[in-house]
Amino acid sequence: MSYKKPMIAITMGDPAGSGPEIVLKALRNSSLFSRASFVVFGDYNVFRKAAETVNATDLKLIKICDVSEYVDSPSSVNIFDLNNVDVSKIVYGKPSVLGGKASYEAIVEAVKHALSNKVHAIVTAPISKESLNMAGYNYPGHTELLADLTGSKDVKMMLVASFFKVAHVTTHVSLKNAIELIKKENVLKTIRLTYKSLIELFGLNDPKIGVSGLNPHAGESGLFGDEEIKEIVPAIQEAASEGIKVTGPYPPDTIFYRAYYNRQFDSTIAMYHDQGHIAVKMVGFMEGVNLSLGLPIIRVSPDHGTVWGKAGKGTASEGATLEAIKLAIELASKKFGFSLQ
Amino acid sequence: MSYKKPMIAITMGDPAGSGPEIVLKALRNSSLFSRASFVVFGDYNVFRKAAETVNATDLKLIKICDVSEYVDSPSSVNIFDLNNVDVSKIVYGKPSVLGGKASYEAIVEAVKHALSNKVHAIVTAPISKESLNMAGYNYPGHTELLADLTGSKDVKMMLVASFFKVAHVTTHVSLKNAIELIKKENVLKTIRLTYKSLIELFGLNDPKIGVSGLNPHAGESGLFGDEEIKEIVPAIQEAASEGIKVTGPYPPDTIFYRAYYNRQFDSTIAMYHDQGHIAVKMVGFMEGVNLSLGLPIIRVSPDHGTVWGKAGKGTASEGATLEAIKLAIELASKKFGFSLQ
Repeated sequence: MSYKKPMIAITMGDPAGSGPEIVLKALRNSSLFSRASFVVFGDYNVFRKAAETVNATDLKLIKICDVSEYVDSPSSVNIFDLNNVDVSKIVYGKPSVLGGKASYEAIVEAVKHALSNKVHAIVTAPISKESLNMAGYNYPGHTELLADLTGSKDVKMMLVASFFKVAHVTTHVSLKNAIELIKKENVLKTIRLTYKSLIELFGLNDPKIGVSGLNPHAGESGLFGDEEIKEIVPAIQEAASEGIKVTGPYPPDTIFYRAYYNRQFDSTIAMYHDQGHIAVKMVGFMEGVNLSLGLPIIRVSPDHGTVWGKAGKGTASEGATLEAIKLAIELASKKFGFSLQ
Repeated sequence: MSYKKPMIAITMGDPAGSGPEIVLKALRNSSLFSRASFVVFGDYNVFRKAAETVNATDLKLIKICDVSEYVDSPSSVNIFDLNNVDVSKIVYGKPSVLGGKASYEAIVEAVKHALSNKVHAIVTAPISKESLNMAGYNYPGHTELLADLTGSKDVKMMLVASFFKVAHVTTHVSLKNAIELIKKENVLKTIRLTYKSLIELFGLNDPKIGVSGLNPHAGESGLFGDEEIKEIVPAIQEAASEGIKVTGPYPPDTIFYRAYYNRQFDSTIAMYHDQGHIAVKMVGFMEGVNLSLGLPIIRVSPDHGTVWGKAGKGTASEGATLEAIKLAIELASKKFGFSLQ
């Protein structure tokens, strides 16, 4: 099969969550189809039901068993049917073995397609950690599962909000645990992965990276904590000695301001989840987009969970998923040499 | 002496820092003088030199020894002269015994005036912890010194950026130490002080307070840390049982968004320095203003240090000091019943 546009895989997410609904709501934006093709990996019947829920009478759902069967039309949603959900058994808003198994299988299939370049990027709809574990897949989330499926060792998360990019050394752990994970090697890995992604994914030349401190005022010379002196500075020095344009640590409450308002860095590096997430959300990007760094494939996702409370009601916002799709198109076009229209 | 406008005390700060310069630059805004009177506590000669540095030929410096000598004119800066600095000995940008002693004495005098209602609020220019300690005053900063001088037990810091208010449970300690300080009693104290200040200082009726979590997603039911369950929830429950409209803990990366963009709370409560400071700075308030909660007097300050690097050059920004003065005027007018013009 030859491609004129990037082919973006979208995984269904947990069928008992809002994933299928927000995927369809996002794909109603017909202008997306001039820039890319989309294959949704999941259960056909789940999407038929979701289409009813979001009243998507404008969309035609097409069942395919191979991406070569792809039907290119803005009103058509091609579904790579895994036929693995008994829709009558879905209980919205609740984790389940059924949901865990189905969401796992959609990811496995999409990753297989991405590794063989049959699709050029993956956008993952939200899954439930609990469902996954109930179904016997003991991963804390997408990231670890994707790392495993692609044989990747170090994977880090970057929040992307237009030009404002924030990579995270740690994410979904307690703040206490995050502090323990601020070690030279871990910070260094994050700097390297960020550098690599800025060049290889975003096409930047000699990018500038700014590293945040962990403590108030970046420790104020050791007065408010010594992680900067013991771990962060040595990591920055080693990365700089490798030729990476990286500086810091900067006080956490000014580095993100410099990055966003003064565009002083191509990417910043946050030490923990909320350091980066508060910074990005407060400039208006409540609907954040995650990019995985360190995978051999492009993977983007909305920065939120299953939105259990709105599942089956069609009321969850598709905003973050739409932004994730747009970023996937942009990155896939660059990587695979498609012209952006 | 009878007052037609609130009398605002402004302390000099460290004479080797940018304090005196930014105070004069702020007082050049002649429109301030229709709403308040100002007495600067510090050394007259320091301000004469600072006036030269910032080229303040428009200002007339007046030496007074009692607030009753006050000269009311927008071009006049009344200086309560403590006559305690040998200007020839100032080394800009460096902590010193001289600087510590002079900045300490200015604060003591201003507080004395505030406690006897001779002035209605204090705006403090930046001091140096090191200078203070070198001069034999072992306080980590303004807050502890002011607590001591006024016999206050619990003092907390609130960042105020227009309607966006964020009180802090902890501030200038390492992140590791901050986590240890997240105890029920400490969170409860902060909620109570915030509630009291919203009513007594800001004149709000039945204010709504939102409390942030400590961990990502506010701990996600204990999955990412248990401080929410063990300490924060019990504090909120106890405060609520006292009749305070307080809710939480909310995920740290959404509560400040709700407070700023949706105005869901009259004040939020941050668990640590950067949680609150990143939130406030990222919405554009780089020049933040601190309000002390728990003192018997009104005390406001710019949220920055001595700006050593710009001292003696006149280049430090007076923005935060100007905002601090405006807030002091507003709060003093409310408390002492002056009409705001």
